[in-house]
Formats: sequence, C-alpha cells, structure tokens
Amino acid sequence: MNTLIRKRHEAILTWLDVAAEKIKKALHDELEVEQKTNPSDLVTNVDKDIEQFLINQIKMTFPKSQILGEEGYGDRTIDLNHGTVWIIDPIDGTLNFVKQKENFAIMIAVYDEGQAIQSYIYNVMNSELVYAIKGEGAYCNNQLIKTPDNLDMHEGLYASSSIFYIGSEPLNEFHHNLSKLALGVRLKGSAGLEAIELAKGNTVGYTAHTLMPWDVAAGKLIIEEVGCVITTFAGDEPSLNGKESIIMGTPKAHRTLLSTLEQLHMNHNIC
Amino acid sequence: MNTLIRKRHEAILTWLDVAAEKIKKALHDELEVEQKTNPSDLVTNVDKDIEQFLINQIKMTFPKSQILGEEGYGDRTIDLNHGTVWIIDPIDGTLNFVKQKENFAIMIAVYDEGQAIQSYIYNVMNSELVYAIKGEGAYCNNQLIKTPDNLDMHEGLYASSSIFYIGSEPLNEFHHNLSKLALGVRLKGSAGLEAIELAKGNTVGYTAHTLMPWDVAAGKLIIEEVGCVITTFAGDEPSLNGKESIIMGTPKAHRTLLSTLEQLHMNHNIC
Repeated sequence: MNTLIRKRHEAILTWLDVAAEKIKKALHDELEVEQKTNPSDLVTNVDKDIEQFLINQIKMTFPKSQILGEEGYGDRTIDLNHGTVWIIDPIDGTLNFVKQKENFAIMIAVYDEGQAIQSYIYNVMNSELVYAIKGEGAYCNNQLIKTPDNLDMHEGLYASSSIFYIGSEPLNEFHHNLSKLALGVRLKGSAGLEAIELAKGNTVGYTAHTLMPWDVAAGKLIIEEVGCVITTFAGDEPSLNGKESIIMGTPKAHRTLLSTLEQLHMNHNIC
Repeated sequence: MNTLIRKRHEAILTWLDVAAEKIKKALHDELEVEQKTNPSDLVTNVDKDIEQFLINQIKMTFPKSQILGEEGYGDRTIDLNHGTVWIIDPIDGTLNFVKQKENFAIMIAVYDEGQAIQSYIYNVMNSELVYAIKGEGAYCNNQLIKTPDNLDMHEGLYASSSIFYIGSEPLNEFHHNLSKLALGVRLKGSAGLEAIELAKGNTVGYTAHTLMPWDVAAGKLIIEEVGCVITTFAGDEPSLNGKESIIMGTPKAHRTLLSTLEQLHMNHNIC
C-alpha cells in the first residue's frame, strides 16, 4: 500500500465506523421511506444522510475527487478515466434495510485514472468488512481471502437477483437452466453481499440484471482480487457507465454462465 | 416453565454449546461427504456424529424418551401422540455446511403427548439461538421476539426452497406468481433458518416442498409462538408423519399463500 492508498484506507475505515454507528442509531427511530421507481426500489432518510456524510468527508480530506453516489449528492457528471473517482452506495440492499434491519452494506470504491485501486463492502449489522487493494488481494475482517476453489456451476451454489423470478422469457429460461445446473439457489437481496459470498467461495456464480455503477464498482475489485471473473452479459468488462447486466463467478462458472447466455442468444439482447 | 421443561431446557442449552464446539472443530478437518438421494442431498460424518451425541445425551438424561433423528440413529418407529418424543436435525442445511461452512442450524423439538412443548434452532456460526416454549413465546438470544407485523405477501419479502426454481408446472407457476406478488425473493437454503427469518419479521411468507418431520418440527412451535401460521399446502396442521409440503407466514400472508394454491388447484395435487 503506497502512502496515498494507505491514507485513503485509514480514512475510509474511520468513516465506515462512524457511518455504521449512525445507521444503527437511526434504526431505533422511525425510517422515512420513499419509493423510487417501484415498491421494491426504496430510499430512506438514512441512505441520504449516509451519502451526504461520506461525500462531505471525501471532499474535506481529498478535495480534488470526483464522486458518484447512488442518491445523487455527488457530482452530476464524472469522468471515470481521469483523476480520482469515488463511487459510493450508502446502503446497498435498502429493501433489506427497511424490512429486515440487517443484510445490507455500505460500499465504497476508489478509481485512479480509470483503474480500480481500493474497494470496501461493509455488512454493517454483522460487522463483516471485506476490502480489496489492487494487486494486494482481498481481506475479510483483515484476514486475506484465499482464492476460492475453481468450481463449475454444477459443483456449487448459484445466486441471482430477484428480478429473474419475475422476468419474462428469455430471462426465465436462463435462470431456470442455471438453477437446474447448480447444486442450489441462494439469494440475499444485495449485490454487494452477493459479491462477498462469491469471494468467500460460498457461491460459485451470481447473475444480476441491470445493475447501476454503485452496485458493481466495489464488488468488482474484490471479485478480481480473489481470482474470480466479472463481466457484462456480453462478456465485456463492466464500463460502470449506466445500467449493465452482470455475471460473476469462478473462472469455470463464469465460462458456463457466458456460454449459457450465448446458447440462449441473450448476450446481445439483454445487456 | 415447569420443572421438567426447565430441566430439559437447561440440558438442551448445554448440549447445543457442546455440539457447536464439536462442529466448529470438525470444520478444521476434511469433511467426509456422502450423497443421499441426489448431489444436493448430502450427509457428512459431522451430521452423524452430532446426531449420535445428542441421542446419547437424551437417552442418558431422559431415558423414557422416543427419538426421531434425520440420520436414523434414533428409534425406528415413534408414536408422536404418546409419551415424550424428541425430533432432532443435527445439521439443517447440510449443503450450506459443506459448501459455505456457515448458514446451517442444529434443531431440536420436544413433544409431550402429541403437543410441541419446546423447540430450538441454533445457527451455529453466528451464535444465534432461537427457542420457543409452548405458551411462553419465542426468544432470540434470550430476547422475547415480538409478534411480527401482520403484513401480506405484497408488503414483504418471500422465501422458498430451491426446488421451486427447478420444478415443473404447476410448482413453477405457483412460485412465479408469489415472487411477482412479493417485494422480493430471499433464499437461505435451510428450513430452520427460514423459520427464524419469518419469526423475526425478515420475511412474511415461506414455502417449501416435501419437507421431512425434522425439517419442520422445531420451526413450527417458534412460528406459532410468535403468532404466525404454518400448515401443509392443503391448509392442515402438519402431521410430522412423513414428507409434507409446507407454507408458513404471517396470518395475512399465509391466507394469500393458501388462496394462491387453491386458485392453481395445487392444494390436493402436490402435498
């Protein structure tokens, strides 16, 4: 870790602790919940407060940063390929946050000149912090995560986003085929927590439809640092430039996910 | 809690602690994994060891008990309606145990003269113990669980067993309709852990196909003690006498699950 990365790392750890305490305190009060695009797409006063807190901290400590945040308190436009860009999701899994008061995460990713340098996913209620530093691996509560066994889809558990259960063809067929192939299906309702599951080897593959950059950015570096693979449905590196449908897995499982998409001719229709 | 229930309660808590330590220790060694009916239906040396340990403890402390255990070390036949019957699942979620080394539970239920008296679900790796005493409520880590809000399916999260993703009609249609109705789908891969999720209000409904008595017994009392409802697909009380397909939910969500089954004429075809 060079001096700049170390400085950001220590700052981020401090902010995550403060943010987690704010969230836990807010859970004692009535949440103010608003619908965004539909009844499953929610935002609360806490998402907004935490995003504003993180943005203020970043701006004070690293004033030249560009910031992209889910709730829109960051910059209106960012150029991922130049300078330092912070991508933040104050609460990933807001539906879980509202309905379960657990199973959600704070996510932060930092890019320098278009390259992911460090990223953080913090499962607040079980105090599980996973982070990755480019070229230095990923860590779960400060323990290096070892590369998961390179198991194929039929040798492990498969996770997906809820959308696959309510979609129409060919999404349904895609999901049905993968569910039959895998040993079982698991579903947490947070793209960040699913990235942790894959990194730990708890699942071998994960598919998600139309994710936003803040859903993908932090997980991507963690996935790559443990030797797993993340792409769009077309097999391309995620651009983090708008909505993208994402597959991630062990190298073997990712190849199976991609070939399943190709067989269904979905890779260009759906992404 | 009368003297007998108290004596059993204290014994069970001690056994669960010892069993959890045995399991955690065993996770450091290579597991011996065998397939039962298919590649997703596994048993390990640890399931067998823990069942034998629990049965030995029960027989030493309460020698008149009948015992039904998943791995078959208990009695060959039991009469649930007479005397004291212990129903145990040494590791519920064995696929998670093998693949994730977390997200599994030890389950114990005690019946007197056909009536559930006390039951225990212990999520070993996150140290979450949920138990219920008939007429005295359910507790999560010794905190009384309050009755979850009586939310309907469209107001909450829906959980199911993996089988619904790989089934054929009308199971697929049933599952698809419910997934569309709910705010989202969640899936843990353990009937015991899903009972905890419902009891805590994290989900509003859960459906599972062809569960065995040891999958259902401990969860049933917990669900009922928090004011939720559990029946077969036909709306009957589970008999715990062989395979049964199960729905559980808040009173409102359970009614919706049952009417969805009736609309699909599944209640008599599938159970």
